[in-house]
Amino acid sequence: MMDSMLQALALPADLTLRGGQVALRRAEMGDLHALMRLLSDDPISAARGDVDADADQDAYASGLSRIIADASNELIVAVDAHRRVIAMLQLTAIPGVARRGSTRLLVEAVRVAGDHRSAGLGSAMMRWVTEVAAPACGATLVQLTSDRQRHDAHRFYLRLGFVDSHVGFKYHVAGSVMT
Amino acid sequence: MMDSMLQALALPADLTLRGGQVALRRAEMGDLHALMRLLSDDPISAARGDVDADADQDAYASGLSRIIADASNELIVAVDAHRRVIAMLQLTAIPGVARRGSTRLLVEAVRVAGDHRSAGLGSAMMRWVTEVAAPACGATLVQLTSDRQRHDAHRFYLRLGFVDSHVGFKYHVAGSVMT
Repeated sequence: MMDSMLQALALPADLTLRGGQVALRRAEMGDLHALMRLLSDDPISAARGDVDADADQDAYASGLSRIIADASNELIVAVDAHRRVIAMLQLTAIPGVARRGSTRLLVEAVRVAGDHRSAGLGSAMMRWVTEVAAPACGATLVQLTSDRQRHDAHRFYLRLGFVDSHVGFKYHVAGSVMT
Repeated sequence: MMDSMLQALALPADLTLRGGQVALRRAEMGDLHALMRLLSDDPISAARGDVDADADQDAYASGLSRIIADASNELIVAVDAHRRVIAMLQLTAIPGVARRGSTRLLVEAVRVAGDHRSAGLGSAMMRWVTEVAAPACGATLVQLTSDRQRHDAHRFYLRLGFVDSHVGFKYHVAGSVMT
């Protein structure tokens, strides 16, 4: 079953970077404030309403608890030697019929703390996704979308072997509070 | 729970088109060959290996059975008055922390049979997704990617109110048989 494959991912996993060791592990409810800070530490996310506001804590807690409870989703955090959360990404395993019944691994919400960027952490995390997590899930395709404004991120994904073959469309549901 | 919300979608659902009534329902294993034909009835999918080959039947059956078993996924088919499958799309409900804990609804594998295109069926199905399925799931965002080559599809999604704000990246996992 696909459901159990993400749950069977070998975590925590150690990543060796130039600056030292980082561990990947599953997010827990105790990471809530660290995740809210990571999301707000990015101008494009902040413009969409991720501003680390106390008033939004319940909404983030609800999202995090639903990810943790969902067998098809994992929120992965990277922690430094002091156990500080310094990066995150979300994985969703998606069974499919297209492309001869391929399973896809969708990556969302890739964020690295401002003071840990350009140190190879993002690359190491994404290589773990493509080289470890995807094969472990039986996924033949890893996919993600990146805001058109994130030119540095686009070069980053192309360097990692991703192909910018698609256009990503978003529809904001009427009546929702999304900015 | 997000898990149960897709399962609680009111289906079958009737769509009224200029040419008559069409019903949306959940796909069943008995739809396998109709789905394989729909996927192959498209030059871009065919170029990716979706060619309705008997040898691929087990791979498609495996994908379809995993979708049916997965509470976060629904494969929806449109059937005409003769109960013939004439279109399909896949929905994945994805809980999240980004965008203040938003739930997303991902749309994959949108296909309409060649002899039923340009009759409003694709629009009616996508309006059902944005106006019925997304609110029913508590999703504030509907997202999809479309191959850069599908210029007509891009105009179609823009007309429906989607915004082409993102670049869609795909990574083909090493060692997989994907073409």
